[in-house]
Amino acid sequence: MLGAMPDHKPDSLPSPANKDITWHAGVVSPADRATSMGLQAGQAGMTLWFTGLSGSGKSTIAVALERKLIEMGRPAFRLDGDNLRHGLNSDLGFAAKDRTENIRRAGEVAKLMAEAGLIVIACFISPYRADRERVRRMHEAANVRFVEVFVDTPIEVCAKRDPKGLYAKAKSGQLTSGLTGVSADAPYERPERPELTLKTVEEGVEGCVGRSLREIEG
Amino acid sequence: MLGAMPDHKPDSLPSPANKDITWHAGVVSPADRATSMGLQAGQAGMTLWFTGLSGSGKSTIAVALERKLIEMGRPAFRLDGDNLRHGLNSDLGFAAKDRTENIRRAGEVAKLMAEAGLIVIACFISPYRADRERVRRMHEAANVRFVEVFVDTPIEVCAKRDPKGLYAKAKSGQLTSGLTGVSADAPYERPERPELTLKTVEEGVEGCVGRSLREIEG
Repeated sequence: MLGAMPDHKPDSLPSPANKDITWHAGVVSPADRATSMGLQAGQAGMTLWFTGLSGSGKSTIAVALERKLIEMGRPAFRLDGDNLRHGLNSDLGFAAKDRTENIRRAGEVAKLMAEAGLIVIACFISPYRADRERVRRMHEAANVRFVEVFVDTPIEVCAKRDPKGLYAKAKSGQLTSGLTGVSADAPYERPERPELTLKTVEEGVEGCVGRSLREIEG
Repeated sequence: MLGAMPDHKPDSLPSPANKDITWHAGVVSPADRATSMGLQAGQAGMTLWFTGLSGSGKSTIAVALERKLIEMGRPAFRLDGDNLRHGLNSDLGFAAKDRTENIRRAGEVAKLMAEAGLIVIACFISPYRADRERVRRMHEAANVRFVEVFVDTPIEVCAKRDPKGLYAKAKSGQLTSGLTGVSADAPYERPERPELTLKTVEEGVEGCVGRSLREIEG
């Protein structure tokens, strides 16, 4: 038999405009989900939200962290901004309202996957503070742990790494959309109180993965 | 050490309009994900897509099936059309184009969760055949198993059950949006070759759950 705690519509969840849409409660608790994954009852799903400039190292850390978690027997999944733009968010561009919608949808998906019991490693430039705070509130409303991870790499380093050649293209005027932190119309708003700040230049990938793991267990 | 097969951008995946969006490959195979969940390597994630009229019994079967799977130690998650309209799809209405976008996003999320190793139980009226076929193709492109489950309950029975009072409201003209199968502008297109057809009137919830489980193992 499963535990007693049903999942339910969080009180703080906004109701849709159409009042004929009801909520279908399930009967599975987070502890039961953990047990079904071979975990201890307290090892619930959560979201690690990596934010930072293009080239800061978000995806590199995330790929290594996902691999490490899976090796440890902790079901994890990487949600990548670029990958999502091939599917769920393929209809969105890079205007401010599209960036906001991109993050709103990504946040909702991360929350759902974390509710399902996964450790979600979300990598999104997510330049706007208000958008990230909204994702945090979605998680809080669903009683799902949310950890904001600021990948704090100086823009000069990002531009030198330039893994996608975007900084070079921006310099020569070949980009059709604004590059975050470079274009005047694409600012990056630094996190004010992130749970974790990773300095890739000083720590390297291994160090960043290690500190992320400790944050997960903490 | 993990297995050799990396995940990668499927060849058949459409590229986004913006050519500056790249794909970030990971290094975790479906077998490794299963192992991390305490499963055998072959027990990969999959999507069961329940389609049928409002009141056909989709959610009732899904809640029972999810509970049963979790009890069996098979990580599962229910994606419910009404619940998603409180979050990810809260910006969408019931016009034909909104219904199509509702299903497109739901399909993308189901696919992602199944890729993560979960058995996804998706419950969406999903009235249009073309929309369901698109979801099937998304899954095929990602090498994820997709099972279309037609909950085939006569509309007279659905209208009599009327769990949300929608059929009564439609009859008295109180609905602001068309009710599938009732309104002339909201047709339901029956599946032509679903993997599974459930007759709730003849089989009951227990029977429907049992046949769904056998399909999952099959």
